[in-house]
Amino acid sequence: MMKTSYRPIGTIHSPFSEVEDMPIQSTGASKILGFVEILPELAEGLKDLDGFSHIILLYHFHRVRESKLMVVPFLDSQPHGVFATRAPTRPNPIGLSVVRLLSIDRNILHIENVDVIDGTPVLDIKPYVPEFDHHPADRVGWLEQARDKVQSKRSDGRFR
Amino acid sequence: MMKTSYRPIGTIHSPFSEVEDMPIQSTGASKILGFVEILPELAEGLKDLDGFSHIILLYHFHRVRESKLMVVPFLDSQPHGVFATRAPTRPNPIGLSVVRLLSIDRNILHIENVDVIDGTPVLDIKPYVPEFDHHPADRVGWLEQARDKVQSKRSDGRFR
Repeated sequence: MMKTSYRPIGTIHSPFSEVEDMPIQSTGASKILGFVEILPELAEGLKDLDGFSHIILLYHFHRVRESKLMVVPFLDSQPHGVFATRAPTRPNPIGLSVVRLLSIDRNILHIENVDVIDGTPVLDIKPYVPEFDHHPADRVGWLEQARDKVQSKRSDGRFR
Repeated sequence: MMKTSYRPIGTIHSPFSEVEDMPIQSTGASKILGFVEILPELAEGLKDLDGFSHIILLYHFHRVRESKLMVVPFLDSQPHGVFATRAPTRPNPIGLSVVRLLSIDRNILHIENVDVIDGTPVLDIKPYVPEFDHHPADRVGWLEQARDKVQSKRSDGRFR
């Protein structure tokens, strides 16, 4: 199949310079502040985004060096297929985080609940809309036993 | 900034062969069936995904030919910055849909609530987990006036 090629639209800045000891999801990154710097020539595309309280960031896991089909995720001690996890060592290392949007100053987005490493290249930004993005998921597989650990669990160095 | 390059992991199949008259979100695609065919050499990565009722599909809007910074979305008559919309004519045309996972047969995922055009290349699949993916969004900007139209609105040919 044809490869797709994307040019990052900007960079995510956060307090995290290393992949260890980070929140593993934005829902566990309460009060963590950061900002997204969008290329100035794309700033027009941000018009009216400031009306939304939450945004979806799609980004490139730039610190990941390999892809694995089976992984032991942070929230379990057993291996699972990588597509059944949110681990970064994926065939296409694309990350997804929903963060709170505090304000926009020209091409700078000030954000909260940041679970992303500093310097991460952003591929896309979308508004988060409950009518589009809330789904009545009634089964969460192997994660069932770990639902209550999501907010407190921190990363280690297993995915690089 | 360095370009990122991804090789699709498979293809989404759906009843929609044209971009017109489609549901505009998966929440408006109730009962629409389809399937995802994953490259056989990546099928191991699907292990344990069948425990999840919903999955996130990230895909390439392969029918889009141009990028626009300002768009008039399906749900409004006024232009907005493309990053404040879910329109496909984005600088990096990456789509996101959450669909119901019915079953997995080796490298074939049978799915429901499909709002994607037939033949779409898939970039990534992630499990949908309320503890990660539900966020208390209290402001939805320009979409506030259109929240009740999400399920019934259909696409037209404006984005190509």
